Amino acid sequence: MKNILFTFFLFVSGISVGQDSTTTKNPVTNISEFNSAVEKAGPGDVITLANGVWKDAELIFKGNGTKDQPITLNVESKGKVTLAGKSSLKLAGEFLIVDGLYFKNGYTPSNSVIEYRLDDENIANNSTVQNCVIENFTQPSRDTKDHWVELWGRNNALKNNYIAGKSNTGPTVRVFLKGNENINTHHQITHNYFGERPRKGGPHGETMQIGSSETSMTPAYVNVSENLFYRCNGEVEIISSKSNFNSFKNNVFFESEGSLVLRHGNYATIDGNIFIGNDNSEFIGGIRVINTGHWITNNYFYKLKGTEFRAPLAVMNGIPKSPLNRYNQVTDVVVAYNSFIDNKSPWHFSVGSNVDKSEVLPASEIRSARPERILVANNLIYSESEQKLPVVAYDTVDGVKFKNNILNSPNESEVQDKGMITQDFEIKQLSEYLYAPAENLNDVYDGFDFETIEKDLFGNDRTEDNSIGAVTLPVSNNAKLVNKKLYGPDWFNPEIEKKKAEVVQVSTSEELIKALQNAKSGGIIELKSGTYKLENSIVIDKRISLRSKNKAKLQFSESNSTPAFQMNPGGSLKIENIDLSGNKNRDAFGTLNENMSSAYNLWVDNSEIKDFKNLLEVSQRSFADTISITNSSVKDLQAGINLAEETDDKGEYNAEFVYITNSEFENIQNEVLDYHRGGYDESTIGGNLVFTGNTIKNSGTSEATEILLKTRGIVNVEMANNNFIDNPVKFIAILWGAKGQEPVNNTIENSGEIKVEENLKQKLMY
Amino acid sequence: MKNILFTFFLFVSGISVGQDSTTTKNPVTNISEFNSAVEKAGPGDVITLANGVWKDAELIFKGNGTKDQPITLNVESKGKVTLAGKSSLKLAGEFLIVDGLYFKNGYTPSNSVIEYRLDDENIANNSTVQNCVIENFTQPSRDTKDHWVELWGRNNALKNNYIAGKSNTGPTVRVFLKGNENINTHHQITHNYFGERPRKGGPHGETMQIGSSETSMTPAYVNVSENLFYRCNGEVEIISSKSNFNSFKNNVFFESEGSLVLRHGNYATIDGNIFIGNDNSEFIGGIRVINTGHWITNNYFYKLKGTEFRAPLAVMNGIPKSPLNRYNQVTDVVVAYNSFIDNKSPWHFSVGSNVDKSEVLPASEIRSARPERILVANNLIYSESEQKLPVVAYDTVDGVKFKNNILNSPNESEVQDKGMITQDFEIKQLSEYLYAPAENLNDVYDGFDFETIEKDLFGNDRTEDNSIGAVTLPVSNNAKLVNKKLYGPDWFNPEIEKKKAEVVQVSTSEELIKALQNAKSGGIIELKSGTYKLENSIVIDKRISLRSKNKAKLQFSESNSTPAFQMNPGGSLKIENIDLSGNKNRDAFGTLNENMSSAYNLWVDNSEIKDFKNLLEVSQRSFADTISITNSSVKDLQAGINLAEETDDKGEYNAEFVYITNSEFENIQNEVLDYHRGGYDESTIGGNLVFTGNTIKNSGTSEATEILLKTRGIVNVEMANNNFIDNPVKFIAILWGAKGQEPVNNTIENSGEIKVEENLKQKLMY
Repeated sequence: MKNILFTFFLFVSGISVGQDSTTTKNPVTNISEFNSAVEKAGPGDVITLANGVWKDAELIFKGNGTKDQPITLNVESKGKVTLAGKSSLKLAGEFLIVDGLYFKNGYTPSNSVIEYRLDDENIANNSTVQNCVIENFTQPSRDTKDHWVELWGRNNALKNNYIAGKSNTGPTVRVFLKGNENINTHHQITHNYFGERPRKGGPHGETMQIGSSETSMTPAYVNVSENLFYRCNGEVEIISSKSNFNSFKNNVFFESEGSLVLRHGNYATIDGNIFIGNDNSEFIGGIRVINTGHWITNNYFYKLKGTEFRAPLAVMNGIPKSPLNRYNQVTDVVVAYNSFIDNKSPWHFSVGSNVDKSEVLPASEIRSARPERILVANNLIYSESEQKLPVVAYDTVDGVKFKNNILNSPNESEVQDKGMITQDFEIKQLSEYLYAPAENLNDVYDGFDFETIEKDLFGNDRTEDNSIGAVTLPVSNNAKLVNKKLYGPDWFNPEIEKKKAEVVQVSTSEELIKALQNAKSGGIIELKSGTYKLENSIVIDKRISLRSKNKAKLQFSESNSTPAFQMNPGGSLKIENIDLSGNKNRDAFGTLNENMSSAYNLWVDNSEIKDFKNLLEVSQRSFADTISITNSSVKDLQAGINLAEETDDKGEYNAEFVYITNSEFENIQNEVLDYHRGGYDESTIGGNLVFTGNTIKNSGTSEATEILLKTRGIVNVEMANNNFIDNPVKFIAILWGAKGQEPVNNTIENSGEIKVEENLKQKLMY
Repeated sequence: MKNILFTFFLFVSGISVGQDSTTTKNPVTNISEFNSAVEKAGPGDVITLANGVWKDAELIFKGNGTKDQPITLNVESKGKVTLAGKSSLKLAGEFLIVDGLYFKNGYTPSNSVIEYRLDDENIANNSTVQNCVIENFTQPSRDTKDHWVELWGRNNALKNNYIAGKSNTGPTVRVFLKGNENINTHHQITHNYFGERPRKGGPHGETMQIGSSETSMTPAYVNVSENLFYRCNGEVEIISSKSNFNSFKNNVFFESEGSLVLRHGNYATIDGNIFIGNDNSEFIGGIRVINTGHWITNNYFYKLKGTEFRAPLAVMNGIPKSPLNRYNQVTDVVVAYNSFIDNKSPWHFSVGSNVDKSEVLPASEIRSARPERILVANNLIYSESEQKLPVVAYDTVDGVKFKNNILNSPNESEVQDKGMITQDFEIKQLSEYLYAPAENLNDVYDGFDFETIEKDLFGNDRTEDNSIGAVTLPVSNNAKLVNKKLYGPDWFNPEIEKKKAEVVQVSTSEELIKALQNAKSGGIIELKSGTYKLENSIVIDKRISLRSKNKAKLQFSESNSTPAFQMNPGGSLKIENIDLSGNKNRDAFGTLNENMSSAYNLWVDNSEIKDFKNLLEVSQRSFADTISITNSSVKDLQAGINLAEETDDKGEYNAEFVYITNSEFENIQNEVLDYHRGGYDESTIGGNLVFTGNTIKNSGTSEATEILLKTRGIVNVEMANNNFIDNPVKFIAILWGAKGQEPVNNTIENSGEIKVEENLKQKLMY
């Protein structure tokens, strides 16, 4: 897990580059001109927004074009027209085109930024939103729900857009299927660039949701093709397909911590998609399968380390006679001609089997219905280093037929089947991430309807020369798996410019304050040795690093009770080699009390922190991606780290990763850590705590709950190699056995015990 | 209810009439010749069964024809080849035709009589079964499950067949959708004559079931068109549609006690069907709606007296987040251009609402989700006599949009909406059952996608001159709603010949025994006055009436302990004006101990019955359609009527109708009646007890349960105008309040009380 630590610094910050050549006569310059133009618009008309910032613009684009003569809404110069503040766009009518809008520096005042509907009676059909950007247009509070794009109606398109930076609750793109006007949609969601969606720290952080359990019986026919999902880390589902007959083709899922999930609905086609992981993250998944009749073909899974819900291929157990909003049994699914290259363990069956939880869960939550009538055929599993577990099974695998799957490692998994064949074959790297056998492996199984799998991952014909796996040879020389330029608007480049960090040296409090104000995001402030007395909070609303070669001392005065460092949305602070001291009445670190619209980060390394109230005190709805305290000394505080303000039992929590390593805590009167996640929820699989190599002394003396380290509901907890000395508590910690938590090699003297409870009674959210 | 009493005498008894002209060379004469012919058969070949009775013939018809050159299995002369005993047919392969087979005098030794599949690997596609008859081919025991036709595969047809008389458990026709080979079926079930399916007395008596809850997510595309359902009374569902995209068009449901039920699955098309009821039965229903997206158009509902589950149009409440096998909410349903003529109350909304049952049912059984986004438009409601309740609502009706529906009576229902318009219009009878306004009512509502409703009930164009209701004028002169000749094989006539009943007079025991043996079904035996001493049981395996003008006396001797009258399958006995006496050790009436393959009937009128053990003692799995004791005197018995042998709690019961009227019961030591139905089940809505005008004296003296009349689980109970005198029991009866049961005008002297319990705690079957 440690390797993830610093990746957060790779922010995406949009920079508009392409200067656009759109020119039209008489652009409209304000809302009333816009409205009047819309009022008059007929087939073939073009309405152009004048350059500039359109603040608080709630655009309603309603009209009826024709197929040959649509009505177009565009901008004077792409990139020079932004919609800011409380802005939104609603479309209603027929044959409308929206081109080149740029939403930034604001958020929607309604449910949606772009909505293909004005109200139930006014829906858009046959309309397109293209070449638009929605960037960081996130609500002030992460629990305010919205969608950035709501598709309604039929035959609409969302294409070549760039959409990134949603931190608040609600899927980024949501397709609605409620009402006969909104089914059989044939919507086309293509060529979009879905940029980073930060970890949300709770459910409802999907990048796309198509339907809902209530409308999961509808024929949706949504086509999601040739999109890039780039680090879409919001939650465990990148795409949540909740309707029937959707297709997902040729999309690239790049280092996205989640899966394409067939959550509700049936008969999805998942063909030719590319899932790219890396060596670091265990959270990057592939495809998770629930329900009936899906065809999963020609997909390419590379270096995915996820398991269980996040496995490259996760086929779940269902709940017998499942309630509408839970887990139907998986039946009649075909998994054919996929390539699994260098994954940790490609196939997980009966994921979510929880028969052993019947003590803490009602019968209607017990997933005991195993997959049935599943065909897994003609797949390729290759691992550079031997990988002996092609199958991980959480229940008996008796409903899966394996046919002609080729592996290069011996199969030592529990599931032994002659349809999994270990075989020596040569593999070649054809381009970045792309591996294929040096020669076609022709012995393919001919299953029912397999003649419909006519093409491979690259669209090559399979009917002539066929091969096991996603790729048939020959592959064209310029075959690339990932080419970011193919996605999003051509006028917009989401790549960050990598600048060398600027280092400013300071030696007085005044210089420090000034340097902090002037620093650009990414700036480093180096403090000369000495004592810096400070009164007001230091506001961290950008990426800042404070360091010192000689242990500078920051002393925070008594005259102010705000935190020494106040973390603001998007702020990242790294403190190295600096000693902080307070006055007992203020917290060392804190957040805003509200409007923590996006995540913050905090790293403390090799520093001393003492005489504060709390080490970290956060507000409800605030969210840290990473909190790290390492090689440091923390002492004489009232309490340690409080990340327990999400008390609604809705699966939310206050930090994704918490690392406390190789540090000493002494004389912390109450708990050293309170890290909490309430509610039974599976949409997120956090938080994550690493608590290793620390020494805790004389702490917990006033803690009423008699628990020193509280981690209730946190899924991943590592607790190893710590020394607990003279802490008068009953429990050092209570770990969650069912999640594999166990204390390792801790030394306990005159302190409480580390208890492991197998199952946790949680409040059901469903 | 009384009017139903004697309709059961209208048996269907098949008589083959048409002499067929099929001639082929070399018909096969036995199974081994058949098998060898099948083995050799290729495209274009015809295999012909030789005339005669093929006993215990398990035919496997496997082969691959082509579209232009199918392989045909036919018979030498239609009607002269019967499959009898333990016989069946299985088809496997492509382009097969089965023509003219006649199954009678037997039952299948497997799951099915005709199955479009040999096993999972050998399925029939593109194959047709036509002009066949399956008549009374019912299992010996009604709890042995089978289907008479099982459709598997794709593109199969079942057409012009006559199928009737199934008394055992299991739908008559069942379409299977398990496995990808069996979806998107496009099966055609057309022009069949589904003759009588007798009341089953428990669930699983559907005439057709398409899919199951487990496969209810599949696209089935089964087309059920232009069939006749003639008195299909098996249970509350005539057709149970449990899959998606099925269509039901131009079928006639004639006096069938049940409904076309959209039980699971979505997006059914129900267009142009005709539902004919009568003045007598309250069990004849129309369409019951569950789930999403159905279009119900151009249907004609005539004289239906059913309510709730059996209403002409029953739109149910759903269970929120329903389990897969229970009740989804109804949403997005369109009900347009239907005619409701002379129905009791046409539209029932929120049927099954049971919020008040939360005490006795688990939350997962509570139907509280009201219909949503329902459009009811352009329908015609006409009643000759004023009918002020077009809508019966079991919950708030807030999800239904009413538009341009025309009524001829004032609307005094709770639901008031300007989309229900009372209007004077002239109506004309165009042919039997067929009524339409004298002039088109042109003011139609134009709903979403209504342009797709291009035709009316008769296929007349709606795009030019349109009208409210199922019919647009003009209607052709020969328009008939019901013409039985259009259905089933042309060589077979299921109509009974109505013969005048033969009356035989007897004056001695010997003559009586002989007359009973010789009598044809329907025969009447008239006993002269006197005493007839009898030893053996009188076996009733046909329709027999025993009557006397002067109170003949039948005395059954001590030397035999079998029942005086032993009811056999299909037996019907009517006793009039005769006194029966026994010896205390035998029952007056009884059934076989097993193999009661079909229902029996018993009527006793104006007779005296005394000195028997029980009045009626039945076996498990036996089933009476009607038991009637009227104007009679019953005394000095150990117990009365026992209809309580179905103890499995699966919703089965031993008699559909029990009438005990204007009779005297005296000195019945134990219970006078034990009539039982166990298990929570909604597929059947029986049994039915009318207990009126009786006097019960000095009975129940030895009854351990202290209940005189036991009716546990029986749905319809009428208990009125009785006198209970000196019966030392605690309860005369315990009635079920939730089903509307209440005692009326009973006189109770020195007897127990009649208790009403609102809700009955029952064993859940699901």
